[in-house]
Amino acid sequence: MKSLRVPEATITRLSVYSRFLERLDKKGIVTVSSGEIADGVGVSPAQVRKDLAYFGEFGTRGVGYNVKDLMRYTMKILGLDEPWPLILVGAGNLGYALCTYKGFNDRGFSIVGVFDNDLTKIGKKIVDLEVYPVEKMPEIVEKHKVQVGIIAVPQRAAQEVADMMVKNGLLAILNFAPLALNVPGNVKIRNVDLSVKLEILTFNLGLRGSEIG
Amino acid sequence: MKSLRVPEATITRLSVYSRFLERLDKKGIVTVSSGEIADGVGVSPAQVRKDLAYFGEFGTRGVGYNVKDLMRYTMKILGLDEPWPLILVGAGNLGYALCTYKGFNDRGFSIVGVFDNDLTKIGKKIVDLEVYPVEKMPEIVEKHKVQVGIIAVPQRAAQEVADMMVKNGLLAILNFAPLALNVPGNVKIRNVDLSVKLEILTFNLGLRGSEIG
Repeated sequence: MKSLRVPEATITRLSVYSRFLERLDKKGIVTVSSGEIADGVGVSPAQVRKDLAYFGEFGTRGVGYNVKDLMRYTMKILGLDEPWPLILVGAGNLGYALCTYKGFNDRGFSIVGVFDNDLTKIGKKIVDLEVYPVEKMPEIVEKHKVQVGIIAVPQRAAQEVADMMVKNGLLAILNFAPLALNVPGNVKIRNVDLSVKLEILTFNLGLRGSEIG
Repeated sequence: MKSLRVPEATITRLSVYSRFLERLDKKGIVTVSSGEIADGVGVSPAQVRKDLAYFGEFGTRGVGYNVKDLMRYTMKILGLDEPWPLILVGAGNLGYALCTYKGFNDRGFSIVGVFDNDLTKIGKKIVDLEVYPVEKMPEIVEKHKVQVGIIAVPQRAAQEVADMMVKNGLLAILNFAPLALNVPGNVKIRNVDLSVKLEILTFNLGLRGSEIG
């Protein structure tokens, strides 16, 4: 990638483009223009071209992009050209929902270990995964060469779980607990806040009769 | 808002800023600079100023922003100055997790009805909410003046649920099912894809030894 700094919004859109390209590919469509990608995902054609330009030259003027090539390339950029084993801590409702979330498998993510410290949950099965005590984390992380962990525990336990993941050598954490966690600089962390998109909706609804502006 | 078109990325950041301001306010902090907001949420100070500029003049040069005022104003812009009643369809694991998700209540969202068509789920309680058959949707929507619905059903049932919400007069839908739904132009819809943020992480991890670029 050289030293180019790619905006996170570009990566987010790249993830959306690659899903759209997958759908086109499944339909047997061979080429696509930036305008068609733009229409399909709801951004401007200029935005599509600008986003892709971060990663090199694509497409042929007047012909467009080869769907399969661009799909594979976007997947590769996102690091999705090979599967990613994940561990998940927190076997509550959210953890269970994440374990059965089809959207992860579709993108090559595979949860290889689920952990909890609740004795009533340990030993139970979530689909084909047994819930392990957190003490088993080092073994599973080493066995599957896991680099990415998901935190789905209540707020009060989240920092402790993050510390445990860092200690076990994980390099990236997806946090569903609604608070900011402290991790060393070499560990990437992202928070999923389930209410942000609701607020985009209420912003739009709010436009109806607002005195703002 | 006049006719100004606000980018969705700005609304997303506004939602993040307002959470940060809430935390400052709880700590008793009275004023904050755009640089401090920027540091706190991980964007540039110029971005903070640009985002806020969409909505008018804020702050005093050399003094910064009044935390409480800006917090209230961002909440108002997001439509969060009054509570939003929501309905949720799908009382599975994800639905259960969403019903107990603290992050919704914190922002003034309140689930007032949970629906499912699974006879083994109807009548059960999720915290203090009884799971209703979908036939009861019109009654609940009218009683609570609900405008926003959440879809947490499997992919195959999602379009049918969206149609039902539209028929019942909802104006905004948050969809957790991993597919694009068709709704009329006057209905706002947003999809939550739980794997997008994972892909931002794998993009970053992928930078280590990649030949991309």
